Amino acid sequence: MDMIYNVGCNLGYSVAGPSTLILNIEAARTERQKILRESLVITPDCPIDTWEMPESGNRYTKLRAGKGDLHVRYDADVELDVDSTDPATIEEVPPADVPFVVMPHLYPSRYCPSDKLARWATEEFSAMAPGHERITAICNWIYDTIEYRRGASDTGTSAYDTLAERAGVCRDFAHLGISFCRALGIPARFVSGYAYGLEPPDFHAVFEAYLAGRWYLFDATRQAALDGIVRIGVGRDAAEVSFATIFGTMFPSEMSVHIAPAAGAVKADERTTQAVHISPT
Amino acid sequence: MDMIYNVGCNLGYSVAGPSTLILNIEAARTERQKILRESLVITPDCPIDTWEMPESGNRYTKLRAGKGDLHVRYDADVELDVDSTDPATIEEVPPADVPFVVMPHLYPSRYCPSDKLARWATEEFSAMAPGHERITAICNWIYDTIEYRRGASDTGTSAYDTLAERAGVCRDFAHLGISFCRALGIPARFVSGYAYGLEPPDFHAVFEAYLAGRWYLFDATRQAALDGIVRIGVGRDAAEVSFATIFGTMFPSEMSVHIAPAAGAVKADERTTQAVHISPT
Amino acid sequence: MDMIYNVGCNLGYSVAGPSTLILNIEAARTERQKILRESLVITPDCPIDTWEMPESGNRYTKLRAGKGDLHVRYDADVELDVDSTDPATIEEVPPADVPFVVMPHLYPSRYCPSDKLARWATEEFSAMAPGHERITAICNWIYDTIEYRRGASDTGTSAYDTLAERAGVCRDFAHLGISFCRALGIPARFVSGYAYGLEPPDFHAVFEAYLAGRWYLFDATRQAALDGIVRIGVGRDAAEVSFATIFGTMFPSEMSVHIAPAAGAVKADERTTQAVHISPT
Amino acid sequence: MDMIYNVGCNLGYSVAGPSTLILNIEAARTERQKILRESLVITPDCPIDTWEMPESGNRYTKLRAGKGDLHVRYDADVELDVDSTDPATIEEVPPADVPFVVMPHLYPSRYCPSDKLARWATEEFSAMAPGHERITAICNWIYDTIEYRRGASDTGTSAYDTLAERAGVCRDFAHLGISFCRALGIPARFVSGYAYGLEPPDFHAVFEAYLAGRWYLFDATRQAALDGIVRIGVGRDAAEVSFATIFGTMFPSEMSVHIAPAAGAVKADERTTQAVHISPT
Repeated sequence: MDMIYNVGCNLGYSVAGPSTLILNIEAARTERQKILRESLVITPDCPIDTWEMPESGNRYTKLRAGKGDLHVRYDADVELDVDSTDPATIEEVPPADVPFVVMPHLYPSRYCPSDKLARWATEEFSAMAPGHERITAICNWIYDTIEYRRGASDTGTSAYDTLAERAGVCRDFAHLGISFCRALGIPARFVSGYAYGLEPPDFHAVFEAYLAGRWYLFDATRQAALDGIVRIGVGRDAAEVSFATIFGTMFPSEMSVHIAPAAGAVKADERTTQAVHISPT
Repeated sequence: MDMIYNVGCNLGYSVAGPSTLILNIEAARTERQKILRESLVITPDCPIDTWEMPESGNRYTKLRAGKGDLHVRYDADVELDVDSTDPATIEEVPPADVPFVVMPHLYPSRYCPSDKLARWATEEFSAMAPGHERITAICNWIYDTIEYRRGASDTGTSAYDTLAERAGVCRDFAHLGISFCRALGIPARFVSGYAYGLEPPDFHAVFEAYLAGRWYLFDATRQAALDGIVRIGVGRDAAEVSFATIFGTMFPSEMSVHIAPAAGAVKADERTTQAVHISPT
Repeated sequence: MDMIYNVGCNLGYSVAGPSTLILNIEAARTERQKILRESLVITPDCPIDTWEMPESGNRYTKLRAGKGDLHVRYDADVELDVDSTDPATIEEVPPADVPFVVMPHLYPSRYCPSDKLARWATEEFSAMAPGHERITAICNWIYDTIEYRRGASDTGTSAYDTLAERAGVCRDFAHLGISFCRALGIPARFVSGYAYGLEPPDFHAVFEAYLAGRWYLFDATRQAALDGIVRIGVGRDAAEVSFATIFGTMFPSEMSVHIAPAAGAVKADERTTQAVHISPT
Repeated sequence: MDMIYNVGCNLGYSVAGPSTLILNIEAARTERQKILRESLVITPDCPIDTWEMPESGNRYTKLRAGKGDLHVRYDADVELDVDSTDPATIEEVPPADVPFVVMPHLYPSRYCPSDKLARWATEEFSAMAPGHERITAICNWIYDTIEYRRGASDTGTSAYDTLAERAGVCRDFAHLGISFCRALGIPARFVSGYAYGLEPPDFHAVFEAYLAGRWYLFDATRQAALDGIVRIGVGRDAAEVSFATIFGTMFPSEMSVHIAPAAGAVKADERTTQAVHISPT
């Protein structure tokens, strides 16, 4: 089920003195995401380093910028080979069988203190039949319980706070979903991406749960098409996945994000009800 | 400055039904830790899997145990090639120059919410000259401020709680040191090990800070010889470094830990005042 | 609807040095609680002060004890004139009409941080018709959501923690009920008492909400008969209502609590479904 | 040491629909504060109720306002008979000797969770000689440790948060001082007032500790003259002492506060170093 998207962003910064910017805005290169064409234009030109994290495929670009205005323009055509499966057929992996390399995604992290949410997870979800549909039930519960409200949270907000305050944005929805999964013994991780259908366009945060030997995608916000997410980065939680990390004295002045079917491509209108898998493994 | 230690532990469990145990008790194999001899005896014999985490050298053994008593006995002779350096010569790495692979150790984690401790770190330590001696000052401050008290904390306790409650055990001291370092832009991570001099003998928790391109060891508890620590595991915090992870219904019945200079080896009595480095770069 | 109860308690302490004990164990003297007979025996005899808080009727006894064993025995026959009303007829008082003297019971307190639970209160209960039955709905929700479990909480546990951990004891159930009421603009306060039907017998904690110009009693634990509670003390929360406050070095060695219909009195078996009012107003 | 101040405030509100406003802006009438002249002008005229809390002398005015603009203008000449004493002569009251009526000021409250700050209080202050000078030492410690910064806190901020974040405004400084006192067994309470010397002029928050049978005034912010505070209200913490409480849909549009020596009165330039007592016993 291939689909081609044109994705990208424009970022502007005002740099007051020598600063360093680490970007994680490029589409990941994975078995299921083929970069057909891409360009990263930095104005003015400045020294860069790049790195691709082996275990995740996350791509980082480090810029050293001098005083003045800085512009970053990323644009890419990405062929997305979404793997869709009947959710009813996808089973959970017993914690004891989780591969060693996946184990860290069972542990609590800064924004996903799954240990502190263990009783909520147990009380609400432990009696349900295990499998992909249980994670969907978690997403439905979050959608029904937590109000999506801009400005409801800040960089200090953990899933524990989100549950108590019953309001948040996409990263908070993802953190809560991840926390419930981990509390139930299901590995889960944070995913950033370009998301088709998101209004207004922005970087989006969703999550993946490890089921049947693969990472399946979930979005408790229902704000974007699950088969229209071009993955940028994955990590334990938002602490590890930031589209821009700044060292020095530079300030954002401009930001826009875009995603659209590439010329000639047509995205089906209907939201998928299938289990969606876009990560390698 | 080589030294040979005999280290190990005995762990007993009472297993009520089919269970899985993941151990991280074996000494890490690194450039600075040579395993001269080791044995891991599991009684009764049961199926195992082993894994060595590439980026850390952590070694894991997964056992599948049936109902009954389970005993694990690990014993090893480890040659420790501690690298000692004059602390005054060791500089911090500006955050912008931290290698990509080390970056995750700058972020807050479950037990080290460095973002919430930023002002304490800044107020107490930001005016100090950067370098190895600043981390020593952090350790001294923790030692002077926090009471070491068994039972003062539990598995939910974060460095934020430890600062508020002013009491903790070795893992809490390590978490607080890590949090202050990260808040100052210094990568830091959690280390478990066999520690010469610790009374009573137990697994010990210390931390490493990334300075001058290497991981240097620190122990704010002052309970063990810094050049007498045989490393077992490293990770973001204690959530990732547990000597035993249990899935199923099994309960600890016995535990002892030992470390001593190997036959013929003599450990200098005095505590080192040098900067100590035992991890691979 | 009068009923006579025999209530009381035995408290034993081991006193290591000159100490002071403040007791709040005597049944309150109010329009609806008549003390027919009571005795407070302290062994050995020691100097006491007593005080009755004017605004609440709470009775305090302060003892100055010397080294040795201390025994306190309280026993009373209390005529309880429970006022029962059809709950459907009892309306809430708009916050703007709450008498000045009742206003403090609208504010958050140590264990009832109603400000932090405002969204839960609003989301779950604000759409319900106001009145006594809304508070009953709050109690039902707490009963269904929170597990009653001994040892689930300690003296630091607030209603915020109880909601997150979904487990608690009677004082936690009361704190959560109070918090939700205050968050909705309904004055509420903590009540301690002797409670008929409680198994095992102990001091009980329930709460009162201010409705239709009176304080109505609620018990989200469903552990005792609502019309079988002999009131001891009221206050903002458990911080203000303690049956024993110790200054010095004395330690509890013994405690028992009793309540039973007085000789000849017969308590109806059925739990009341009426609105119950026992406080003066 | 009498002194006459002219104090007052102007408050403007925009009222969208029938609303109720409870004001606590009038100078308290106590043995040490004589109201020589005062006026409270509400425009447009509207129904009011007034109440003076017996145990504190706090004065409340409740207004029922209709749609439109609302203005409140309070102005008074207050004779302040500050009682000044040599701090070295003022002793603490052993907790066991605290009068029953003062006891509630020993307990933790919403913003002053003294139980959670017990170790900080003990570690920093328990070795000091008891008495007025110990509370001054607490104030000095707060002044040295916590940064006074507008916007550093909000209505959810407790003393526990203030200690962790090391920044706050006057109410946070007062909450922390109160918490430390209570943790040490010293009754303490929150005080709002008009404060001579405060720049820019505003309502001020300070605190009182109960010493030698009286309430002595303390201000850890050092922003105003301790003998130039005209008391408005006292309570357990800011939850109980608000200059304006709103029920309904009205919004502040204007606010100014003033205090100055009355015509002919001259306030000494120097800050007092005496112990200051302005509350009724």
